[in-house]
Amino acid sequence: MDTERYRVRPGDKVRLSEWSTSDVETFNGAKSDGKEELERYNERLLDLQQMLYAEARHKVLVVLQGMDTAGKDGTIKHVFRTVNPLGVRAVNFRKPSTLELAHDYLWRVHQHTPSTGTIAIFNRSHYEDVLIVRVHGLVPTEQWEKRYAHICDFERMLADEGTTVIKFFLHISSDEQRDRLQERIDNPDKNWKFEHGDLSERLHWDAYQEAYEAVLNRTSTDAAPWYVVPSDRKWYRNLVVSRVLIRHLERLEMSYPDPPADLPDIQVE
Amino acid sequence: MDTERYRVRPGDKVRLSEWSTSDVETFNGAKSDGKEELERYNERLLDLQQMLYAEARHKVLVVLQGMDTAGKDGTIKHVFRTVNPLGVRAVNFRKPSTLELAHDYLWRVHQHTPSTGTIAIFNRSHYEDVLIVRVHGLVPTEQWEKRYAHICDFERMLADEGTTVIKFFLHISSDEQRDRLQERIDNPDKNWKFEHGDLSERLHWDAYQEAYEAVLNRTSTDAAPWYVVPSDRKWYRNLVVSRVLIRHLERLEMSYPDPPADLPDIQVE
Repeated sequence: MDTERYRVRPGDKVRLSEWSTSDVETFNGAKSDGKEELERYNERLLDLQQMLYAEARHKVLVVLQGMDTAGKDGTIKHVFRTVNPLGVRAVNFRKPSTLELAHDYLWRVHQHTPSTGTIAIFNRSHYEDVLIVRVHGLVPTEQWEKRYAHICDFERMLADEGTTVIKFFLHISSDEQRDRLQERIDNPDKNWKFEHGDLSERLHWDAYQEAYEAVLNRTSTDAAPWYVVPSDRKWYRNLVVSRVLIRHLERLEMSYPDPPADLPDIQVE
Repeated sequence: MDTERYRVRPGDKVRLSEWSTSDVETFNGAKSDGKEELERYNERLLDLQQMLYAEARHKVLVVLQGMDTAGKDGTIKHVFRTVNPLGVRAVNFRKPSTLELAHDYLWRVHQHTPSTGTIAIFNRSHYEDVLIVRVHGLVPTEQWEKRYAHICDFERMLADEGTTVIKFFLHISSDEQRDRLQERIDNPDKNWKFEHGDLSERLHWDAYQEAYEAVLNRTSTDAAPWYVVPSDRKWYRNLVVSRVLIRHLERLEMSYPDPPADLPDIQVE
């Protein structure tokens, strides 16, 4: 799979309407083949994550963003189902608390950035502070306008200090969102996921797409690239995210630490 | 007192040997007058801090740096002796813990940045990561070299998001440090402050002065200015720090929140 086509290059002018939500082209096979392939990716990701943990040299930050129902939770569940929780932490960023709002918007996310040897997965992130905040005008324009630069600076600093930052925008169509919301209403097993707020947010679809375009155009850097993942087909979305992660981890050229020189001579009594 | 002469302007090329450590010129009076003046400053600072707390709109970060014995602890004690601890928090940054070292160097300081309505005082800070780290080569040059830019970016973000950042370098002479270290050895009441490590650090005096010059030249911005405070005379040091703080707080043009419109009519039964 060549997933490079989904990466937003610095300087790109992304128009989301031109990026497919249902592309499955880079995988040569049907959905059932894709699910088998995912199992192989899961195993490979586990190998790499174990080495990351053992070597304890690098840090990895995965950012997941997308419209409601885009599949952030499902991606975490399926892509990371094999990894060792000791070395992986998923963090949900919900509506900020009073304490969080009393600090700058990067305060709460910085606390949860990964330590050496670990992967942190952000389910939503500091990008909400230029998404929902922008769409609903929660702070003045001149304040959120400066945040794109802050965010690039922040992620640059994380990268300089040893963190691999990888960001995924799970891209779905408006029709797909409608179907998934309806499913949450119609299917009793999914009722718990339904929130009235999702319906009112859906009315701002175009404003959100525009806000995401600004994010993709202004914050996809070499240090912290964005990938626009076609996400109408869940199995394909999982494959793309897995493949990108694996590629980034492989580039770290990790190895297990050398054993003590006298190891072969040690006899446990 | 005109304390502007102690501010490092962006673009200045500071040579510390040209900045006085014993200047008392901006105060018109003797040491005993200075001590009386400090009491008036203490009261004024309390008034401003109460309003900061009541208004809960601004955040204030005070960074204190200086060579060993420069008087960071003493400054906190004397300048802030009247303020309400509910709204002021002093944070010591000592040798980083294992957990702290497993994250980027801004991680531990970001957590302690002030919330709205409060003042945080950093006793040492993220600047140690371009001071002791540089002098002792604790990370490669190409890594600490990038930190000056990170730090400017970080403080710029804090300022954009409503934090007033004020930084003080407490400037003492090498002779003054020698006398103060000797005093810690000779005076039983001060023995608890003595550490052998201070003597070995003193051998790196010139390297530290050079590292401080780089800090002052590269990180004094309009958003987060440095002040080089003559600190051989403790009473004068306290006056300068107090005066600068008061000026910055006054510029915030704070006021107490308006009472509810019906307040005069309310009768407590």
